[in-house]
Amino acid sequence: MSLDDRAAALDATDPLAGFRDRFRLPENVIYLDGNSLGVQPRHVAERVRRTVEHEWAEGLIGSWNAADWIELPRTVGDRIAALVGAAPGSVTVGDSTSVNLFKCLAAAIMQRPGRRVIVTEETNFPTDGYMMQGLAALRPDLEIRAAAPGSDPAALVDADTAVVALTHVDYRTAALHDMDAVTAAAHAAGAMMVWDLSHSTGALPVDLAGCDADFAVGCTYKYLNGGPGAPAFAYVAPRLGAVRQPLSGWMGHRDPFAFAGAYEPAEGAAGFLCGSPQILSLAAVDAALALWDHVDMAAVRAKSVSLTGLFMEAVEAECGGHGLTIVSPRDDARRGSHVSIAFDGGYAMIQALIGRGVVGDFRAPDLMRFGFAPLYVSHLETLTAVRTLRDLLETGTWRAAGIPSGPVT
Amino acid sequence: MSLDDRAAALDATDPLAGFRDRFRLPENVIYLDGNSLGVQPRHVAERVRRTVEHEWAEGLIGSWNAADWIELPRTVGDRIAALVGAAPGSVTVGDSTSVNLFKCLAAAIMQRPGRRVIVTEETNFPTDGYMMQGLAALRPDLEIRAAAPGSDPAALVDADTAVVALTHVDYRTAALHDMDAVTAAAHAAGAMMVWDLSHSTGALPVDLAGCDADFAVGCTYKYLNGGPGAPAFAYVAPRLGAVRQPLSGWMGHRDPFAFAGAYEPAEGAAGFLCGSPQILSLAAVDAALALWDHVDMAAVRAKSVSLTGLFMEAVEAECGGHGLTIVSPRDDARRGSHVSIAFDGGYAMIQALIGRGVVGDFRAPDLMRFGFAPLYVSHLETLTAVRTLRDLLETGTWRAAGIPSGPVT
Repeated sequence: MSLDDRAAALDATDPLAGFRDRFRLPENVIYLDGNSLGVQPRHVAERVRRTVEHEWAEGLIGSWNAADWIELPRTVGDRIAALVGAAPGSVTVGDSTSVNLFKCLAAAIMQRPGRRVIVTEETNFPTDGYMMQGLAALRPDLEIRAAAPGSDPAALVDADTAVVALTHVDYRTAALHDMDAVTAAAHAAGAMMVWDLSHSTGALPVDLAGCDADFAVGCTYKYLNGGPGAPAFAYVAPRLGAVRQPLSGWMGHRDPFAFAGAYEPAEGAAGFLCGSPQILSLAAVDAALALWDHVDMAAVRAKSVSLTGLFMEAVEAECGGHGLTIVSPRDDARRGSHVSIAFDGGYAMIQALIGRGVVGDFRAPDLMRFGFAPLYVSHLETLTAVRTLRDLLETGTWRAAGIPSGPVT
Repeated sequence: MSLDDRAAALDATDPLAGFRDRFRLPENVIYLDGNSLGVQPRHVAERVRRTVEHEWAEGLIGSWNAADWIELPRTVGDRIAALVGAAPGSVTVGDSTSVNLFKCLAAAIMQRPGRRVIVTEETNFPTDGYMMQGLAALRPDLEIRAAAPGSDPAALVDADTAVVALTHVDYRTAALHDMDAVTAAAHAAGAMMVWDLSHSTGALPVDLAGCDADFAVGCTYKYLNGGPGAPAFAYVAPRLGAVRQPLSGWMGHRDPFAFAGAYEPAEGAAGFLCGSPQILSLAAVDAALALWDHVDMAAVRAKSVSLTGLFMEAVEAECGGHGLTIVSPRDDARRGSHVSIAFDGGYAMIQALIGRGVVGDFRAPDLMRFGFAPLYVSHLETLTAVRTLRDLLETGTWRAAGIPSGPVT
């Protein structure tokens, strides 16, 4: 069967095909950047409009209770919990992924007095490393031990290790860590485990309770379609109870409106809330997640593997001889939901592709990155993207520059 | 002249009267809670709609540049800078007031190695104290030295003091600190000064450069009308250059999209940015602040003093004999833009007032709090509020309970 026939057949039997109409897809565009900023679910605009024009404009201060604003960090957290194998109540939403990672790292350090090492890897997403460096600047007794590319961070864990912090899906290569194995290795050494699920949530099944992670964070603006810079989530294992973390603002207090002098953390993830939540952005995430209540994550994973697999197969079959190197794992079990291709002219090629309506992104020094959001990307689009790439390579018309895009992780 | 005639005359000559129509005011309500959540400027809804339906839905990832999302933390910061006596570039917007306070406190601690004391006061807003406690939990060498109610925090500053952190306007009494004097006292001892301007910004003139403060934070959802939980701001004195602070996420990096391994802070307030900004909430603040470009802060202060003064005078003249005690300073120069009244039945009275269309709020144990936002509250409304209070006192119909409201600081 030709690639075209296979793609058509896969789309015809796609159990997730019905979700495509739930999104506002840009016209004449194949959007392979949902791993950076997800497209907008159709019902989000109406929800934000209601929040602005009714809840805020008319309800004013009373909407903190009447419109349940005060509960949103927990109720949105519960929706995410269902997608990452977490118990209800163990996830809350607010602040950024960076800030939430700081809470988790610092909480782990405080839970492991006498241990002074944070284990990570050099290829972790930059802001994750920057937050560790920030913590170490404030606590110069701490050491950041980062595994070199290709080496196993678990091998760096020892009796001095307070916490291991890794991103599940590598933002460049899409390579997956084995959450069970790494978490077990951390625990065997008495260390705590923090997972950054930014490139995982909504892209593949995650089982936080099953792997017994202590903490996790992740963003909601990629595969969850929560909107630009949408608030991030934090997971705290229920077995940890009330956990002290240093960003202890009033929303994480056991009784915020008692206005007590001494901080007392709420139980679990509720104690990882800090300041007042940004309601407009949070309402958008809530609306976007309503759609996910009906999604089978096993089907998402199957389609993700199918899309990324087809893409790589087609690139190899049709784009050979032009100096492209696929850097994402070919083993399905080791790959997330995007594919990266090294190419010397990668920056200009991505701009040329965008000019032709195929939106991916570029990561220095030479990576072209293509994300496959299973709820709205089809197999035929995937093939069309490869044909566009092939055409640009064969005609040489990609040799033109563009402008860099924004926060794309 | 009667109070009514005076109120009518003051409204007739109010130079800010024209601003009232720029807001969506709730019908049949006198809203004296703009010190908690400001009302909505009329043009905000259209801006949020554009951000959601055009910039996000259609522009997608390209809007980080095409719609200037990436610049919003700085451009919105510049709008606030103009209201607090700060140079362009010295204020950025993002995260919550709590998180921004942590950045400032920790930065000050790191700038003053060998000093271990944070000076504040017990009556500071609870989340400010909680964030200090969080920092001290992570850095047990630190000591929080809090002035008892009525005592002078400046008297606690000594050679061990790294930083003095106070809220300019007391959230309960509206009492003002002398920013010049306290900042000078901190500096005389070699300490740094952090001001929380949450109850000041948009309510009275502030001169951060003039008083030579090192850092400041503040919220945008009160007098600035930025929307529920809108992102907060941070000020860094330009003379400090690039300042290390521990919440060092990628947006505060000197070159975020270089994806370098080592964090290097951007200059000044730009280095106090952290994770990705919550764009929907930030767009609302930007739109709300456009209105402030045309506001004369001296006129705001004059009207604020006039409104709060009239309110207290009328309460004293017309609500005597019922056990009310005004706890806000009578000296205009010592008072912010709200008035607090102690009353044994304060909680029930606030609910009764809300039932009659006069919205204030309650602060335990017994404070009724009334905020006067000069851009949209009139003198006649102020008198009507007092008459409603008087009527409830005289008839005793206030003796009914209600439910507490949400985050109101």
